Amino acid sequence: MAVATRVSQRTHSAISPTSFLALACHFLLLVSSAITPCFGFSGVGGEDEGNREGDLYPEILRDEAVSRLHQLGKVSDGDGYLERIFMSPAAVRAGNLIREWMEDAGLRTWVDCLGNVHGRVEGRNATAQALILGSHLDTVVDAGIFDGSLGIISVVSALKVLSINGKLGELKRHVEVIAFSDEEGVRFQSTFIGSAAIAGILPVSALQITDKSGVTIQDALKRNSIEVTEEHLQQLRYDPKSVWGYVEIHIEQGPVLEWVGFPLGVVKGIAGQTRLKVTMRGSQGHAGTVPMSMRHDPMAAAAEAIVLLESLCKHPQDFLSFDGQCKSYSLESLSTSLVCTVGEISTWPSASNVIPGQVTFTVDLRAIDDMGREAVVYELSSRLYQICDRRSVSCTIDRKHDANAVICDSELTSKLKSAAYLGLKRMTGSVQDEVSVLMSGAGHDAMALSHLTKVAMLFVRCRGGISHSPEEHVLDDDVWASGLAILAFIETQL
Amino acid sequence: MAVATRVSQRTHSAISPTSFLALACHFLLLVSSAITPCFGFSGVGGEDEGNREGDLYPEILRDEAVSRLHQLGKVSDGDGYLERIFMSPAAVRAGNLIREWMEDAGLRTWVDCLGNVHGRVEGRNATAQALILGSHLDTVVDAGIFDGSLGIISVVSALKVLSINGKLGELKRHVEVIAFSDEEGVRFQSTFIGSAAIAGILPVSALQITDKSGVTIQDALKRNSIEVTEEHLQQLRYDPKSVWGYVEIHIEQGPVLEWVGFPLGVVKGIAGQTRLKVTMRGSQGHAGTVPMSMRHDPMAAAAEAIVLLESLCKHPQDFLSFDGQCKSYSLESLSTSLVCTVGEISTWPSASNVIPGQVTFTVDLRAIDDMGREAVVYELSSRLYQICDRRSVSCTIDRKHDANAVICDSELTSKLKSAAYLGLKRMTGSVQDEVSVLMSGAGHDAMALSHLTKVAMLFVRCRGGISHSPEEHVLDDDVWASGLAILAFIETQL
Repeated sequence: MAVATRVSQRTHSAISPTSFLALACHFLLLVSSAITPCFGFSGVGGEDEGNREGDLYPEILRDEAVSRLHQLGKVSDGDGYLERIFMSPAAVRAGNLIREWMEDAGLRTWVDCLGNVHGRVEGRNATAQALILGSHLDTVVDAGIFDGSLGIISVVSALKVLSINGKLGELKRHVEVIAFSDEEGVRFQSTFIGSAAIAGILPVSALQITDKSGVTIQDALKRNSIEVTEEHLQQLRYDPKSVWGYVEIHIEQGPVLEWVGFPLGVVKGIAGQTRLKVTMRGSQGHAGTVPMSMRHDPMAAAAEAIVLLESLCKHPQDFLSFDGQCKSYSLESLSTSLVCTVGEISTWPSASNVIPGQVTFTVDLRAIDDMGREAVVYELSSRLYQICDRRSVSCTIDRKHDANAVICDSELTSKLKSAAYLGLKRMTGSVQDEVSVLMSGAGHDAMALSHLTKVAMLFVRCRGGISHSPEEHVLDDDVWASGLAILAFIETQL
Repeated sequence: MAVATRVSQRTHSAISPTSFLALACHFLLLVSSAITPCFGFSGVGGEDEGNREGDLYPEILRDEAVSRLHQLGKVSDGDGYLERIFMSPAAVRAGNLIREWMEDAGLRTWVDCLGNVHGRVEGRNATAQALILGSHLDTVVDAGIFDGSLGIISVVSALKVLSINGKLGELKRHVEVIAFSDEEGVRFQSTFIGSAAIAGILPVSALQITDKSGVTIQDALKRNSIEVTEEHLQQLRYDPKSVWGYVEIHIEQGPVLEWVGFPLGVVKGIAGQTRLKVTMRGSQGHAGTVPMSMRHDPMAAAAEAIVLLESLCKHPQDFLSFDGQCKSYSLESLSTSLVCTVGEISTWPSASNVIPGQVTFTVDLRAIDDMGREAVVYELSSRLYQICDRRSVSCTIDRKHDANAVICDSELTSKLKSAAYLGLKRMTGSVQDEVSVLMSGAGHDAMALSHLTKVAMLFVRCRGGISHSPEEHVLDDDVWASGLAILAFIETQL
């Protein structure tokens, strides 16, 4: 059972080793305690049980979990690529499949009025607070098979192990797994629909948000025979007193764990995010007859804006001016963590021989530091208006989504870190390094759940740091490691 | 019957009077004989017949023609906007309607194997060459109602006048009106399908070009019960010996006639055109986890390319280096006539939280001077490859369409100019200025027909120079003027 925790995956990576070094410094600099070498690890409380082959369950935590990941990865609305958006036919089929697996693990299951799939086992103490575990079942377009799904399948597999060895009924607190219906926000351009409802932060007005075809969230649910009213939404909200904490397993979606050569890491905090929709309107006209000097072309304005956005996010220090110590800190954290993306763009009327009358594009903007992110949004907006003014093009900037950075609970994270260490030690017999502590540049359902309870996250190494792509890949043994880690964590509740 | 030929339409224009001045200089500089003032016009050969109210036919050439333009403008595949692409359901309905109007004008009609609608009257001399008149029945997406349709409706109306006054059978040569099935190229990204087939320059391989859904031109025809084979295509080609010339009426689609305050102009030449499809491929990834410095983002590359394209086309002299007199001429004509447009752009997978893996956009590039246009395409391509190389993004540039500039036949143009003058004189009693001679920045079916026969074109003033837009507008009296002009031209064949 020789499993190396320092598995180099660089062969398949699109990123050079030199770049990795730059990147890891980039992310780990933010976490002072991160990669202190820890040769000859001193043990995790009383839980250092050594390598016990009988507890490794490779047939469930690795082989079946990997098989299920591939099976779920085929449940798609796309032909030849993976796409599963909120309440789409494939999302509903995926929910049914997950529900089967939850029942196979001995859980009581149901689907709530926002399409979240729940599986629950009651604890011995009826009044104890519940531990919630989960991740999302939706995907982006042309997605990988691990994003979201790994977090659901790993915890269901761990609970199946407890069910098989007869310990599922012995948990001291209730344990509930939730497969959230929307985290990516592809369909409604508004993330965390499912987890925000559970946390009680989804306003009733959100039910009327429409997709590109004009279908509302409420309609999308109704088409699947799910009624959701304001009353249902209030009832769905969990009572904070009934919940102990939320733990989520997720692929890292970045290259740090691969660089440090470790399959698992815990998360110190999740970057805040702003999502904008920018609409520029100019003078539509014939591509052959309007001289360049007389054009009010929103496509040229949008291109200039996107070039500006890239410069601003690469070199915020060249655009923002800060004074004082606090603001200098913002600038430093910005220059190492700020990322900006234009993922969608469209023109109207979209014909090669027509100067567009309108161009619309999205901006996704993330940073560890909330104040710094606000400064960037302000600076960007003001420069976009300047570009449009100079070109006599109108510009509307809609703020579609905002989420502040979330700092994970230190005590829960410490327990999860110990469990990850124990799980890896069971696999390998010995672990040379400490489990890394990372920041997350990606948003997760844990951001929404942090409004309800304390949260912690476990990251799993993925090849080349690539995600939101069919290239996304997690080693079978790393899937296994995540199962063993969460099993060890749940076992602390026995 | 007081109709002013100097009608100012600037009130509704989005373009300022100052800009008009700049523009008119810009286009008319190219035509030395264009706006020489001509107070006290000396007459047009023996055809100066003065104002004869009985010959004005406002009920046909204005009222019915305008009514038909609005009727045809409602024949659309779009809901709430005008869209009629090659062989779409609306295009077929439009063809049937035009055929009815042709028959109403006493013409024998048929639809050929590329969906062109023909209406023909035989001349007294069976061996005389035919005069072809026409324009296109397809539209862009969110089109105006005059582009293409005006040229068909005006000539059908003029022939109806001849039919009513009993002169249709007295024409010395055959006259054939053709409503071409595709000029805009929206569906197959390849313009002039219908007119190129008539001119014998459509290769048989073109029948296999596919639209976005994978439907070929041949399939699109077959779905409308039209069989087209290589043999059919060869038979469709007109014998150059059987044709005398081609005359097309079209809205100007630019603001020069409005600026000079004249409803009609004749065309000296049509700008050459190149249409490119640029595809950039980079590293698809999660918007939150890939640091800016490690991205290979094709969206940022495309934005930089589009900004560069705009600069190059605004100021070609800053990018291109020419030596010698001939090349200096190219540079001068380029700097006054070059126009470049990005009308379509799309990302894959097109989600706001995914760094795109691929971006595709179109480039439409036009200039009066073919050699200059080639130089711009070369310079642009080379700079686009440089941008992509620097960003480690791949770049493919497909040349989808090329058309050299076309110089109209001077003799035919001179006859058309005289007829336009005569038509206007019939309307107003006196005409102060000479009919302007313009260059056309837009491509027209006349470009394809120039491979078959000599061509001439009549431009009709449109408001603000706006076209390819629902804002496109032609005054009712200018529709009338175009009908009177072409009637006068056809009457020269009596």
